[in-house]
Amino acid sequence: MSSTSSHSHYHDWLRDAYAMEKQAETMLEQMAKRLEHYPQLQLRIEQHIEETRQQQTLLAGILDRHGIAHSSVKDAMGKMAAMGQAFGGMFTDDEVIKGAIAGYVFENAEVGSYTSLISAAKRIGDTASVPILKQICEQELAMSDWLISHLPELTEQFLTLSEDPDSKAKR
Amino acid sequence: MSSTSSHSHYHDWLRDAYAMEKQAETMLEQMAKRLEHYPQLQLRIEQHIEETRQQQTLLAGILDRHGIAHSSVKDAMGKMAAMGQAFGGMFTDDEVIKGAIAGYVFENAEVGSYTSLISAAKRIGDTASVPILKQICEQELAMSDWLISHLPELTEQFLTLSEDPDSKAKR
Repeated sequence: MSSTSSHSHYHDWLRDAYAMEKQAETMLEQMAKRLEHYPQLQLRIEQHIEETRQQQTLLAGILDRHGIAHSSVKDAMGKMAAMGQAFGGMFTDDEVIKGAIAGYVFENAEVGSYTSLISAAKRIGDTASVPILKQICEQELAMSDWLISHLPELTEQFLTLSEDPDSKAKR
Repeated sequence: MSSTSSHSHYHDWLRDAYAMEKQAETMLEQMAKRLEHYPQLQLRIEQHIEETRQQQTLLAGILDRHGIAHSSVKDAMGKMAAMGQAFGGMFTDDEVIKGAIAGYVFENAEVGSYTSLISAAKRIGDTASVPILKQICEQELAMSDWLISHLPELTEQFLTLSEDPDSKAKR
């Protein structure tokens, strides 16, 4: 009985993580598509879209091992879509800066979720999943670090482009 | 003309930052009020509410120096309230874990915003504001670090409490 509760939370959080990566893919694709004048950022986002798809496969494997039907992710998808909508306005905003900040924020939402998931996996004894979840968390952290460390120069670049009256280079 | 555009963005972002701190105060207060079984987290949040109020005063000073009317923050408040609603469900969720992750995510939204603002302040030559914005950014970073570093033990604690059938200690 007692362990059931921990397992149940762990399973919920795994579903959330899977839904989060689906949402991440959608949002990153929207953003990459709109970027025109920021090829370095676009490239990094495209790399991360690839990572995100691999993460979905890894998470699907964990769901399978726990006998969690992928269809049961539906509720979690709804929640993540709502969160995505809040971010979505920022991701698709004309201002590349807001998009980059939103991306950074979303990566940190992922880092937080995996940090908690790793703790839960250890606790319920799902040792096989721990290195996988750690690996995903490190990829999110790397993307988050990349975005925050490039944000100052991105801001410079955005303000420079915005000062050019011929340029509509907000993205 | 050219510098007007940078100034205009900078002023918008200052307004956003002020609105963000107002929203932060509301959300942190909601969360602190609901926490019952996590006194350490509650204490840290209460400390940060105090910091948040001081940050509002510092930002108001910057707005004043730029002749930005506080009433013009209204639009930014609407945007932030929408973001707050998305987070709000998480902040007031029964599960303290989601609240802690949401708090961490919101702190990082602030870190991203100030990182960009510092760049913009330097660019337009508002050197007086740079150390103030840096100080605020460091406080947000410290809160973010605190939350992520305590998240594993908080998860442990939450799962332990959730396994006690007599406990409704989800918050």
